[in-house]
Amino acid sequence: MTTSTMTNKPLSGKSSGAALVLIDGAWREADASGTFSSYNPATGLAIDGSFPISNWSDIDSALEASKVAFEQLRNVPATRIADFLELYATKIEQAKDRLISIANQETGLPTSPRLSDVELPRTYNQLRSAAAATRIGSWAQATIDTKANIRSIYESIGPVCVFGPNNFPFAFNSLAGGDFTAAIAAGNPVIAKANTSHPGTTKVFGELAWEAIKELGLPRSLIQLIYRTSHEDGEKMVSDIRVGATGYTGSRHAGLKLYEAASKVGKPFYAELSSINPVVILPGALKERRGQLVEEYVGSALAAVGQMCTSPGMVLLVDSPDARSFIEEVASKYKLAPVGTLLSKAVQQSLSRSIKSLCESGATLLTGGEIVSGDRCALTNTILQATGRQFLSTPEQFQTEAFGNAALMVLCKDVEELHQVLMSLEGNLTGSIYSHTGNDDEASYDVISKTLVAKVGRFLNDKMPTGVAVTAAMNHGGPYPATSHPGFTAVGIPGSMLRFAKLTSYDSVRQARLPWLLCNKNATGKTWRSIDGQWSTADVSA
Amino acid sequence: MTTSTMTNKPLSGKSSGAALVLIDGAWREADASGTFSSYNPATGLAIDGSFPISNWSDIDSALEASKVAFEQLRNVPATRIADFLELYATKIEQAKDRLISIANQETGLPTSPRLSDVELPRTYNQLRSAAAATRIGSWAQATIDTKANIRSIYESIGPVCVFGPNNFPFAFNSLAGGDFTAAIAAGNPVIAKANTSHPGTTKVFGELAWEAIKELGLPRSLIQLIYRTSHEDGEKMVSDIRVGATGYTGSRHAGLKLYEAASKVGKPFYAELSSINPVVILPGALKERRGQLVEEYVGSALAAVGQMCTSPGMVLLVDSPDARSFIEEVASKYKLAPVGTLLSKAVQQSLSRSIKSLCESGATLLTGGEIVSGDRCALTNTILQATGRQFLSTPEQFQTEAFGNAALMVLCKDVEELHQVLMSLEGNLTGSIYSHTGNDDEASYDVISKTLVAKVGRFLNDKMPTGVAVTAAMNHGGPYPATSHPGFTAVGIPGSMLRFAKLTSYDSVRQARLPWLLCNKNATGKTWRSIDGQWSTADVSA
Repeated sequence: MTTSTMTNKPLSGKSSGAALVLIDGAWREADASGTFSSYNPATGLAIDGSFPISNWSDIDSALEASKVAFEQLRNVPATRIADFLELYATKIEQAKDRLISIANQETGLPTSPRLSDVELPRTYNQLRSAAAATRIGSWAQATIDTKANIRSIYESIGPVCVFGPNNFPFAFNSLAGGDFTAAIAAGNPVIAKANTSHPGTTKVFGELAWEAIKELGLPRSLIQLIYRTSHEDGEKMVSDIRVGATGYTGSRHAGLKLYEAASKVGKPFYAELSSINPVVILPGALKERRGQLVEEYVGSALAAVGQMCTSPGMVLLVDSPDARSFIEEVASKYKLAPVGTLLSKAVQQSLSRSIKSLCESGATLLTGGEIVSGDRCALTNTILQATGRQFLSTPEQFQTEAFGNAALMVLCKDVEELHQVLMSLEGNLTGSIYSHTGNDDEASYDVISKTLVAKVGRFLNDKMPTGVAVTAAMNHGGPYPATSHPGFTAVGIPGSMLRFAKLTSYDSVRQARLPWLLCNKNATGKTWRSIDGQWSTADVSA
Repeated sequence: MTTSTMTNKPLSGKSSGAALVLIDGAWREADASGTFSSYNPATGLAIDGSFPISNWSDIDSALEASKVAFEQLRNVPATRIADFLELYATKIEQAKDRLISIANQETGLPTSPRLSDVELPRTYNQLRSAAAATRIGSWAQATIDTKANIRSIYESIGPVCVFGPNNFPFAFNSLAGGDFTAAIAAGNPVIAKANTSHPGTTKVFGELAWEAIKELGLPRSLIQLIYRTSHEDGEKMVSDIRVGATGYTGSRHAGLKLYEAASKVGKPFYAELSSINPVVILPGALKERRGQLVEEYVGSALAAVGQMCTSPGMVLLVDSPDARSFIEEVASKYKLAPVGTLLSKAVQQSLSRSIKSLCESGATLLTGGEIVSGDRCALTNTILQATGRQFLSTPEQFQTEAFGNAALMVLCKDVEELHQVLMSLEGNLTGSIYSHTGNDDEASYDVISKTLVAKVGRFLNDKMPTGVAVTAAMNHGGPYPATSHPGFTAVGIPGSMLRFAKLTSYDSVRQARLPWLLCNKNATGKTWRSIDGQWSTADVSA
């Protein structure tokens, strides 16, 4: 996603009276350069309370405490980390009403089904599935060469900074979501920077996680929380020697600055930046089931007001009466569909700018494009159209991400031109091809499919990309600018944990000194390990 | 390793008469800004022939051709890539005499046992073991979720640029070594930039690989070869949109510039930069077997004239009469040992500078430190000594890599100070602890071991780090500045292949359209795949 969240209040001096930060095991007043507040995007009204913008001294204290926590964690058994993830999941489930109420206010996302029935269960289930992965330890891919007596595992990398996005206040929250869960499950302390559009939600998570830490007697700086920093201090933080890695989901511009800072000192930085998620609908599919495809597309593209990372923002079609009918029908459904509330003024403004930019590139506005007047953050459901030739004349501009309820239909003159458009694409999280259920589209599919596969993290057949199942085979990733490294997924246990792990070989290390996953005895009896090239749950014969 | 190789000849205009580059399936004259020659570091004499310094147009042509090759490769079965690796290995074995003769001239490394009995067999065996990995496909970690019908694999990432180091003309050669082999085995075309200290050796590899490509009818730009570029063009190359990733082993300074350029556009860049490989010898071990440890250390540290990536350049000891005797005995062995030939003038000069810098930081020169007069590249075997307190006063300077036959002994006043020194270390490829074979050192080991583990890619007990076995459990990697990402290894099949792979999920993709590794049928009957969380070589029940 490319939008960053901005607050609607001017900075107001010091942080006295503002929410407390959690640093080094204490909820305390921030050393702040000012404060900010969140507001309800459905009404434009400010929400009570304010949050501090931390100075470097806060971050420095958090980094120092996380360094200590990391040392302490090396002596904490994996089962106790799993206990934490499970207890925290239970506390989240119990605090459901409180979390949903504040998240609904801060994001405008509907209480039900979205927040209550989809996103919150996803969040605590993810914590539980990470706990199970930590307990069993197969995620670490223990590899044992008995002849040379060399044994390797993925193990904790060091303190992880997490910058969460605006669009999932629970499931990607910097203190409860995917990156957080993966980092903790891999054995690392986390310093969370709240997304500034839902600091109140993040604070509730912080309180729940903190309770769990105290109850279990875990290192007090296993988690820490700040709400906001200057861009400069953010760059200083992710490139600090005490940091192990960073997980970031957010605006492309801010993400790239942080990524550059981190890369200069070899600190892994996993960024999810921008994706338009192309959907190709081949002629046979359109002929066979146009009505169904219109429904499927509109349902996916307008889900969460188009504010999903995998929202299908571009459809590629071969020009034909069917294709034109498809576009007309989508546009008329867009016109009739209720106009949802966007996450923030910043999303609204950025969406409006993107639509303007697409129009300037030559796209035709079929419906929408207007900011809804009043205090609610909203913009009418928008469909744009362009030809393949137009797209190919300025492919970069036509790939401007319009994060929200706007989509671009690209009419290509034939499959070859459609293939050219695919070749001109940047990296994406997903790419879909719809084709005839029989063989009518096979020849076209063969021309284009491998080109699309090479550009995306997840490749779909006859399916919209917006459902991102938390499964071991999920890749929520992809080539730049979808993410900063095409070898990693941000969703899916245990895959996502590997981002926050360091590979270590133990060469001729004595049995009693080895990490539990590398000892001859398979401690759980269930841990998968690769022993002399064969995956096994057996002990190593001594 | 931190030394870059420089030629001893001025640039001399265009490339007419110089060696041909291999671009787009043709050995042709380079578009060059000048030429350079290699020379024999044992004699200082120039070696006949010259090599071109390619302009951007050469690189641009190579990139364009590699893009085409990558598209073609997507339709080449893995078995044919394996055929290539095997045929190439055979050709290398057959061309043994030619390769050894030119490599010996260009690097000064001894013909036997080093080049002939160790490095060349390692090189062709590595190609064969990569071929086997490609054939079976377990490296791709196929992961199948049958319920959701989502299936993921690691697959080829795109054209890979390989910059090989000066110190292994065979085993890390940009056209035959570890990075090359891993990149090809993962299904990618390679653009090799020869190391400028052994361009002639690299050219012979190019000829052999090219023969194998022609005989097998593989995509003509599967491999390409250039010899040298400007720094600016190098940066442009690794950040080009047509590149998938880069493997680099070489100087820290040049590597960081390239890394920064690649990171800005999200191109994975795997760099191996610098490592001093600390060895801790605890008091009990010293008391128990000092004489043996002196032998072991000197043998490892002077192997290949200290020009191994994992050469143990620093020993940490707790001050005692035993420790002082250890240092004296090492120094006297260094004094008596033959002075080996260094790889180049550049290595000699850089080593001399590093020794000066360590002395300026306060280290005492116990023996050596002098450039050997004459035309041979050599410097007397050098031992330096410092106290833990000195080290801690300027830890960064004391970690200056002295690539070559020089090492630093650090005498700490107690285990606590030694622990402080370990805490001040940057990342390293390896770290070793020697301790009493019984329990005499357990208390000290417990204090220091986890701190050292966190800083290194490979952690050893009672073993010197210079043997780097090609095994699945090997990690030749480590935190920055050892490498640019602590999650990957540069040695070991199949691990090293993952650097040049992209993770892809296939979501609801029809059986006939899936990559062979993800089909229900296990095509080889031997490929390990994770099916619903269990590793298995079985078919997926349809």
